[in-house]
Amino acid sequence: MASYSLEEIARLVDGELLGGEGKEIKITGVAGIKEAEKGDITFLVSARYEEYLSTTHASAIIVSSKYDTHIPMIKVKEPYLAFLKVLRLFTVDTLKRYERGIHPTAVIDKSAKIGRDVAIGAYAVIDKNVVIGNRTTILPLTCICGGASVGDDCLIYPEVVIREGCKVGNRVIIHSGAVIGSDGFGYARDNNINVKIPQIGIVALEDDVEVGANTTIDRATTGVTLVKRGVKIDNLVQVAHNVVIGEDSILAAQVGVSGSTEIGRNVILAGQAGLVGHIKIGDRAMVGAQGGVTKSIPPDTQVSGYPAREHTLAKKIYAVTARLPELMKEFRELQKKVEDLEKGLKGGSSAEND
Amino acid sequence: MASYSLEEIARLVDGELLGGEGKEIKITGVAGIKEAEKGDITFLVSARYEEYLSTTHASAIIVSSKYDTHIPMIKVKEPYLAFLKVLRLFTVDTLKRYERGIHPTAVIDKSAKIGRDVAIGAYAVIDKNVVIGNRTTILPLTCICGGASVGDDCLIYPEVVIREGCKVGNRVIIHSGAVIGSDGFGYARDNNINVKIPQIGIVALEDDVEVGANTTIDRATTGVTLVKRGVKIDNLVQVAHNVVIGEDSILAAQVGVSGSTEIGRNVILAGQAGLVGHIKIGDRAMVGAQGGVTKSIPPDTQVSGYPAREHTLAKKIYAVTARLPELMKEFRELQKKVEDLEKGLKGGSSAEND
Amino acid sequence: MASYSLEEIARLVDGELLGGEGKEIKITGVAGIKEAEKGDITFLVSARYEEYLSTTHASAIIVSSKYDTHIPMIKVKEPYLAFLKVLRLFTVDTLKRYERGIHPTAVIDKSAKIGRDVAIGAYAVIDKNVVIGNRTTILPLTCICGGASVGDDCLIYPEVVIREGCKVGNRVIIHSGAVIGSDGFGYARDNNINVKIPQIGIVALEDDVEVGANTTIDRATTGVTLVKRGVKIDNLVQVAHNVVIGEDSILAAQVGVSGSTEIGRNVILAGQAGLVGHIKIGDRAMVGAQGGVTKSIPPDTQVSGYPAREHTLAKKIYAVTARLPELMKEFRELQKKVEDLEKGLKGGSSAEND
Repeated sequence: MASYSLEEIARLVDGELLGGEGKEIKITGVAGIKEAEKGDITFLVSARYEEYLSTTHASAIIVSSKYDTHIPMIKVKEPYLAFLKVLRLFTVDTLKRYERGIHPTAVIDKSAKIGRDVAIGAYAVIDKNVVIGNRTTILPLTCICGGASVGDDCLIYPEVVIREGCKVGNRVIIHSGAVIGSDGFGYARDNNINVKIPQIGIVALEDDVEVGANTTIDRATTGVTLVKRGVKIDNLVQVAHNVVIGEDSILAAQVGVSGSTEIGRNVILAGQAGLVGHIKIGDRAMVGAQGGVTKSIPPDTQVSGYPAREHTLAKKIYAVTARLPELMKEFRELQKKVEDLEKGLKGGSSAEND
Repeated sequence: MASYSLEEIARLVDGELLGGEGKEIKITGVAGIKEAEKGDITFLVSARYEEYLSTTHASAIIVSSKYDTHIPMIKVKEPYLAFLKVLRLFTVDTLKRYERGIHPTAVIDKSAKIGRDVAIGAYAVIDKNVVIGNRTTILPLTCICGGASVGDDCLIYPEVVIREGCKVGNRVIIHSGAVIGSDGFGYARDNNINVKIPQIGIVALEDDVEVGANTTIDRATTGVTLVKRGVKIDNLVQVAHNVVIGEDSILAAQVGVSGSTEIGRNVILAGQAGLVGHIKIGDRAMVGAQGGVTKSIPPDTQVSGYPAREHTLAKKIYAVTARLPELMKEFRELQKKVEDLEKGLKGGSSAEND
Repeated sequence: MASYSLEEIARLVDGELLGGEGKEIKITGVAGIKEAEKGDITFLVSARYEEYLSTTHASAIIVSSKYDTHIPMIKVKEPYLAFLKVLRLFTVDTLKRYERGIHPTAVIDKSAKIGRDVAIGAYAVIDKNVVIGNRTTILPLTCICGGASVGDDCLIYPEVVIREGCKVGNRVIIHSGAVIGSDGFGYARDNNINVKIPQIGIVALEDDVEVGANTTIDRATTGVTLVKRGVKIDNLVQVAHNVVIGEDSILAAQVGVSGSTEIGRNVILAGQAGLVGHIKIGDRAMVGAQGGVTKSIPPDTQVSGYPAREHTLAKKIYAVTARLPELMKEFRELQKKVEDLEKGLKGGSSAEND
């Protein structure tokens, strides 16, 4: 495991080691301020992460100004850029990690076009007319079906399936077990028999997309299921046919997106959230964990719960809901009191109902 | 991509092109009225889909009588049958799509029985005593374990696993990454240690079943986990041991069905719905997306929410719930008023408490 | 299928066949009292399962004292130990089930160390410096990446991926499609671009762990994602980076656990439950199906619902919630009554507000 002293890192990023003590501390990894463990260096840019300064388990932090915290700080002008530099220290180059070359057992159709400096693992299957870009790594037991294309500098882990005709951009990472381009789930129903509608579209993953393990992205009925540049998808996510996901959006594990839904850019869908089909999620919207979204969401909106509602309202509802059983009692008491009052009033005033 | 003029299609289905303009329109696909995009032709049978007539993105529609809509119509006696004819135009024949023959790298045990006109892909593994029917297509890297059988005209995509002894009917489609016959999740618990109970049953998929990508169907503890004729299962669905799913039912993505639950015919379970074990879901019942079903459901019932309740009630509850925070305020006000009234009454009548 | 008469079983466990009739009954399997079907034998230890005595479908039951039930009983001192003995009757020995030896098509790197009496299936790929223990079974098309280790007596089903450096203990079972050690989902975010944080930790599965089909367990950012001894994980479960799961805990199908969450021992997470990151779940806690856990849970606590609340409270809330629409009406009526009372009081008492 790579290890650098804090002093070495400060020099690398041209930063000031505040206080000076701690320069011998060994840094063995990088992480976000919330996730960091002992040995990690982290960074602070947004004010909204300042609250984690006092609780982070990181061993050091890169900042743009001095803070009152328990761990050594490296002060730089641009903490995020500095962090990216440090991050590269701990990133093993894929080209070195996986030996270049084509394993003799890989089955590659004659019509396939394979780029320079690729690595293709044992028992990989690359079918007719597939195109593989330069420096791309395809690990063992992966299957790339007829007419599919994979760009440059991609990393395809073992046991991935990329179905016929699907297009994968550059620098895309696909984790094991992911299926790109399985049939959309579409049937014409009549007399209770479901007749399959041919799913003749494709999936396109643009540059810098990452797809998690055992995630499934269905091909379009016709046209394209489109995952735009920079989208990051976690494990066991379902993306149905004809969905569009905007640039730099994040889908956490076990999210499900139903057919033809359009997701804007920089959207965040937390774990196990589900979206019905044919709706639009505005840019920068956020859906809370397990949120069940039943209608379109405007940009910059946070929703949660089922059915998903604006998050501030949802939180109020949770608070009230917790007191419902008690409220029920109070309500019955109040009904009794009002009844008593009514009796009292009647009894006390006259005999007009007799 | 196949493309036909509307006129050609009208002729194929022996239909009348209403209005006549639009006969040059190019049709490139088929889809349901809700899912259809530009270039698709769709159809209308049930009155309950009429509401989509004005909003469908389809380029044309097959109907049984004239409607007031924005797209060209082809009028026929039986729209659904006509649609099936058109659908065939756009369905590529599996037999043509995947070249017949057994790839030299496929490992097929001597005891296996392989039908006529099959296609078996590279690195497929077919173990002892497996039976494969006629015209069935098994794509690369799929594993069919000892004693399993697959019927005629099936299509098994790459990287599927069919475990020992499981039975797959005719015309079944299984998508990549699906696992048929993994062990049921059963343990005998004592002193907090969980001892595995052998799962010695099988899974049987009847004719015309479709199983989505990365879906898992567990073998029975003893006996059979049974998926009946025509059932369509989407991606990432979990079907536990000893479950029975009735004919023509639909399970959308990420649904989970716990052990020994019995699902009737023509049931629809929407995305991410979950069913506890040992219950019965009546014929034609529907469970809404993310619905959590904790007890049996009678036939023809729609439920939603957690815990799942009759859908009409559930919708009323959602409506009231949204107003709960506000209601809480009103309730506190009302309590105050009643208190005031009580004081008023007491104060106004006598000094008996002094 | 193995089959034993009840008399044979009674003799095996040195038990008394109560009543005596039924000794000819054929037992073909074993199961828990709730799951048992015809032909199964089951057992009773805890009083809390007594309620199933009258409804179990088992053909016989092992007990420690006589009960009033409809099926034959075998009385022994220690029913659970007796049950374990019977269970072994029906468990096919893995060593016999899968022929020992290495299939000629398996690709095993020269640097890998392979134990005695292993079975390694067709097209398995075992990369550099992998260590495989004695008597371990690795089925076809499984990929074990560089530096990973698998202990003794493990059973790895077809199409599993164990990523680089991950450690698997003894007697571990991993079902088809499971991915052990996929990258954790971690990005540094700035100006809306997500930059991948290297995930350089590993996954460790301790002894006697079982991992379900298509389940994904992510490697730690740095350090270890740790699944302790005896943990049983069902299908399609997501375990994120740096999670720790305590001994003998159970995760049912489609559960999702977010990053760095710590789960105690003997915890039960029911199907589709979801846990946010960075929380602690106390020993013996239980989370109900679909429960959404947003904060730490003390030991011995049962929670359910979203957001997850103590189960007794949650049940009360469900009960009240079901009556909310009706309650709403009653509330409006009560408001009206109070208004009337106020009017009545004012009208009846004086003109002081005029």
